[in-house]
Amino acid sequence: MPELRRDPLLDRWVIIAAERGSRPAAFDIEPLTAPTLDPADDPFGQGQEAFTPPEVFAIRPGGSPANSPGWSVRVVPNMYPALRIEGALDPRGYGVYDKINGVGAHEVVVDCPELNQQLAGMPVGHITDVFYAYRQRVEDLSRDKRFAYVLVFKNHGRPAGATQPHSHSQIVATPIVPKRVTEQLRQLNRHWKEKRRSLFQDIIDQESRQRERIVFENEHMLALCPYASSFPFEINIYPKRLCSDFRKAGAEELRAAAEALKICLLKWKGALGDIAYNYLIHTEPNDSGENGVHMDFPMLDAFFCWHIELFPRTTKPAGFEWGTGFYINVVPPEEAAEVLRGIEVAL
Amino acid sequence: MPELRRDPLLDRWVIIAAERGSRPAAFDIEPLTAPTLDPADDPFGQGQEAFTPPEVFAIRPGGSPANSPGWSVRVVPNMYPALRIEGALDPRGYGVYDKINGVGAHEVVVDCPELNQQLAGMPVGHITDVFYAYRQRVEDLSRDKRFAYVLVFKNHGRPAGATQPHSHSQIVATPIVPKRVTEQLRQLNRHWKEKRRSLFQDIIDQESRQRERIVFENEHMLALCPYASSFPFEINIYPKRLCSDFRKAGAEELRAAAEALKICLLKWKGALGDIAYNYLIHTEPNDSGENGVHMDFPMLDAFFCWHIELFPRTTKPAGFEWGTGFYINVVPPEEAAEVLRGIEVAL
Repeated sequence: MPELRRDPLLDRWVIIAAERGSRPAAFDIEPLTAPTLDPADDPFGQGQEAFTPPEVFAIRPGGSPANSPGWSVRVVPNMYPALRIEGALDPRGYGVYDKINGVGAHEVVVDCPELNQQLAGMPVGHITDVFYAYRQRVEDLSRDKRFAYVLVFKNHGRPAGATQPHSHSQIVATPIVPKRVTEQLRQLNRHWKEKRRSLFQDIIDQESRQRERIVFENEHMLALCPYASSFPFEINIYPKRLCSDFRKAGAEELRAAAEALKICLLKWKGALGDIAYNYLIHTEPNDSGENGVHMDFPMLDAFFCWHIELFPRTTKPAGFEWGTGFYINVVPPEEAAEVLRGIEVAL
Repeated sequence: MPELRRDPLLDRWVIIAAERGSRPAAFDIEPLTAPTLDPADDPFGQGQEAFTPPEVFAIRPGGSPANSPGWSVRVVPNMYPALRIEGALDPRGYGVYDKINGVGAHEVVVDCPELNQQLAGMPVGHITDVFYAYRQRVEDLSRDKRFAYVLVFKNHGRPAGATQPHSHSQIVATPIVPKRVTEQLRQLNRHWKEKRRSLFQDIIDQESRQRERIVFENEHMLALCPYASSFPFEINIYPKRLCSDFRKAGAEELRAAAEALKICLLKWKGALGDIAYNYLIHTEPNDSGENGVHMDFPMLDAFFCWHIELFPRTTKPAGFEWGTGFYINVVPPEEAAEVLRGIEVAL
């Protein structure tokens, strides 16, 4: 019997329909093809720093000068930004509609100098450096009073939206708090008002007790398949120490997050093969005063918790999903977690 | 300069970033391949009625008996249903989570008897019959007090989620009002409380006056690219006579909707080639009493309006979209509408 499950953080229902998994092509994993880019055409390659706008951050173990070789992680403005860094916010009405000029930031984090290296294959120490670069950029961008939110995300593989094969992540700063984050804040706020507890804490406590959806944990992080997973093999990674602000994640937490991420990616690979995926980091909105979200949710720091959401590209949203906002998932998260727990990986 | 636009019906922002269209592979249309199914293996073919569960509705011009050849449109239960028709609703708690057994309906509308016929190629009279079948099934399923909503939708082509190449639509009845519909109701209700007007009416009035986003209109229907389109070349079709309930659409309105749909599909084909797409019909939730939505929104009948939403598969949602709930659209709807208006089509 299929089951409807409510995602308590988004007030969204998911249909867990395991029987549907038996139909032809239920589980539609798009194949990942190896990059065919000529290294000479790679805008993110070592020695090709002139192909990108000047860097805004880089880790340079040998202390080499900016925009020269010698970096291990490098952050540059996106050549084709979705939002532009120049100008003041200028919100306008247009009859019944509202618009704002597209002020924001759009940066590319080049994860490593090598064209054919993928994140799951990098040492944990290097992935920690990538996380350190994320944190540094979130810190810097959140100082800009025009930006209400800074989102870190990664599109891996063409079916997941990546247009460059060289491993990279992206950072977008928006002048509006994302709807997905506001929805979480609304649910968390309701829970807080009623119980004076964080809904994140309640979820982490229940999952730690039941253990049936846990994929991996280390001292600081817990990786689990969410109770109301929208997609087969979806994973969330939560810090065990509740903290609303990714900027406050300590060095040990960044390393633990990097380890958990690497292990989850390798477990996916063992279970599903080489797949396209997305991940993103949710943190609290900026306290810029202008966006007012900290006025709407004054206890935000007490109930929000930064976390990482990982989505393998295992199914495509279609008419039902666009029409309802609900997803149909053919693999119960308990089964996905059991499969993933059973995959042995070596770091 | 990119622009953020707010979708007034969903309180969701979209980034219209035309410049991004110039980057490599910005406009990622997955190719549609012609069906390779052997007609003998087609579960939806004429003469193969035994391949499906017994029909729940059919249009049979010659009056042939049920589950035999002679039909022009045929509706059958889905062989791999996402929800099951049997049993009473049994909502349960599970610690911090909520679940309901998967009671609902999942039907397939076989649009025509021929394997290689596609909707855009059918006569308007036949598409009207398909709409008539939709309306009949929505009427029937909405009588079931367990169902809070009945959604009609179509996935065309494998990249849009279709697993069968034979042209078909789907109908799903859910025990919960879809989040997307509740969001619209919330926005419409706010507008009504403030202005005692339907937000749909305000949108239709402004669009009819400005005309820059209109693709096509006939006596009863208006087809336009929405101001805050999430995807390039997205289209909404609205009835000119505001009516919350698709079941109350008259014969002339169904025919006008069928004509508008066919013309939009042919204009897409002229502008973009043979593409995969989804469409869906939004109508008001069922007044079952149990779901309470008519108690939450007592003026629903005055401000909601049934409509059709059409999504071409022109881009893939990725990390940014999952993380924010916002979309990046590289084709301003004014440009899309202008291109589509310029495509001449013959019915």
